[in-house]
Amino acid sequence: MTLTKSDTVHRPPSIVYGPRIVALAGGVGGAKLAHGLAQLLPPEDLTIVVNTGDDFEHYGLTICPDLDTVCYTLAGLANPVTGWGRVDESWQVFENARCLGGPDWFSLGDRDLGTHLERTRRLKDGQPLSQVTRDFCKAWGVEHTVLPMTDQPVRTMVGVETGELAFQEYFVHQRCEPKVTGFRFDGVESARPAPGVVEAIETAEAVVICPSNPWVSIDPILAVAGIRSRLEGKPVLAVSPIIGGKTVKGPAAKMYSELGIHPSAFSVARHYRGLLTGFVLDGVDAAQERAIQNLNLRTLVADTLMNHLTDRVRLAGDVLNFIRRPL
Amino acid sequence: MTLTKSDTVHRPPSIVYGPRIVALAGGVGGAKLAHGLAQLLPPEDLTIVVNTGDDFEHYGLTICPDLDTVCYTLAGLANPVTGWGRVDESWQVFENARCLGGPDWFSLGDRDLGTHLERTRRLKDGQPLSQVTRDFCKAWGVEHTVLPMTDQPVRTMVGVETGELAFQEYFVHQRCEPKVTGFRFDGVESARPAPGVVEAIETAEAVVICPSNPWVSIDPILAVAGIRSRLEGKPVLAVSPIIGGKTVKGPAAKMYSELGIHPSAFSVARHYRGLLTGFVLDGVDAAQERAIQNLNLRTLVADTLMNHLTDRVRLAGDVLNFIRRPL
Repeated sequence: MTLTKSDTVHRPPSIVYGPRIVALAGGVGGAKLAHGLAQLLPPEDLTIVVNTGDDFEHYGLTICPDLDTVCYTLAGLANPVTGWGRVDESWQVFENARCLGGPDWFSLGDRDLGTHLERTRRLKDGQPLSQVTRDFCKAWGVEHTVLPMTDQPVRTMVGVETGELAFQEYFVHQRCEPKVTGFRFDGVESARPAPGVVEAIETAEAVVICPSNPWVSIDPILAVAGIRSRLEGKPVLAVSPIIGGKTVKGPAAKMYSELGIHPSAFSVARHYRGLLTGFVLDGVDAAQERAIQNLNLRTLVADTLMNHLTDRVRLAGDVLNFIRRPL
Repeated sequence: MTLTKSDTVHRPPSIVYGPRIVALAGGVGGAKLAHGLAQLLPPEDLTIVVNTGDDFEHYGLTICPDLDTVCYTLAGLANPVTGWGRVDESWQVFENARCLGGPDWFSLGDRDLGTHLERTRRLKDGQPLSQVTRDFCKAWGVEHTVLPMTDQPVRTMVGVETGELAFQEYFVHQRCEPKVTGFRFDGVESARPAPGVVEAIETAEAVVICPSNPWVSIDPILAVAGIRSRLEGKPVLAVSPIIGGKTVKGPAAKMYSELGIHPSAFSVARHYRGLLTGFVLDGVDAAQERAIQNLNLRTLVADTLMNHLTDRVRLAGDVLNFIRRPL
């Protein structure tokens, strides 16, 4: 891939030659930081490895919510209001299926359905998800490399007091209401890193764990055999998805509480113990910085809220400078 | 089912108590006459048995073109311009799938896709096609009974000089261009009439073979074990789909020619030899009436072109009067 002229113009020249980075990402928060990083790093210097534990089958279609959120965000096609799905979306299919008695708990927009239909067609045709994702990125003009964590199906199961729920059943259908007791990544034992994942990590100068849900967005990626072990000895930093004890979006803080852990930036840092070399926390949590440093981590206090594109680029720049900062 | 007030008002009172009819139908032409019959007969007096040999799988969805055309037409949802698909249709899904490299030879509209998605979901859930069709008809306000010929998958294969083509591959993808050599209804050996088909035929006063393609719309229905045999000894009349040697739509005339048979109303009457008691031909083919009568058939010369709803109702009325006409 080559830089286009417009990319070069918009990228601050001071960090055009950035560190080679692998970002681990789940959905919205991860996609935002990945988007910021993509504004600052040339395509060959950023690989985004995305959680597929959220993937599920609905109406016979294979739906990959995190992959789609990351790709749509990088392509400028994401819906900025909902945080999921596509901008300028229509709902004809979904409304007509609902009129016929179809399940309506997971919203499927028309443009979005084009993605699910063609992906499902290709998967049934035998194409691996990583290849499908590469082709879709090319069609959408996404130049940075986006990889699913694995080409094998892994399905996050949420332990609740009554048993286990498939992730989207818990997350969307039951609106994260059941109290969680644990998590299991069904199929992960036979999952291998998707082609390119190991190579990207091995050649990366640093790995950035995006501000995604540690339990259900990042842990599934780390659970794929060969990924976590290849992070050892490498600079790995995480950006806290918990700000002031809460999450911007999603149930991470609620999950920590229900598992008996105080939701905080410190808890996130401790969650990744043994893995991280650095941690980025929000200014509102600055009082926790010393405790996090005591986990033997370098720290950066930054403004981690990403409401606008400028916030994404600013945080990405802070993270890249933090990586390059002399120890 | 009961008659609504508006149905009663619009139905000519002279034939409110019509004969109990089973109509065998394929796509557009069959749907038009079925629609006309539905304007004249109360729901309990009309059952439409529809070809499913055209059904196929596309993008992982089960698509039933003839069933949908009949149901959409009866529901007033059919696209009057294309002759297939739905009125007021949008194409967001299809265009987006095409942008991703998806096959574009079979057009899938957004509203139409709602049907395919929910049908596929139900079929995968184990519901038989006849039940799905009944539920969909209820949702669409279709009061007359529409039945697939069978709940088992039957797939029409078109013999061509180079081998065999699945029907939609021949019909849509290759635009009926290959020269046909014959037809085979894959799976028909293990197909049983859908629940209600045999009962409807046994209690019918007459069976009307709609002006659909004899080779690929009606023959598949007749090939389902138990259907053809139950027509014996019963008034069965066919309306010619060939007018002046041509078809209004579709490849029936081309198929007759390629199989070495002159395409004509007479050829259609002879096609159904041993099955019919009566035949309806268009006025432009009146010169063939005597020859058709010589096949030991009663005949009716009528205006069989159905451009508008009034034409459909007029032809349906002519057919019903022909059935009731003393021998």
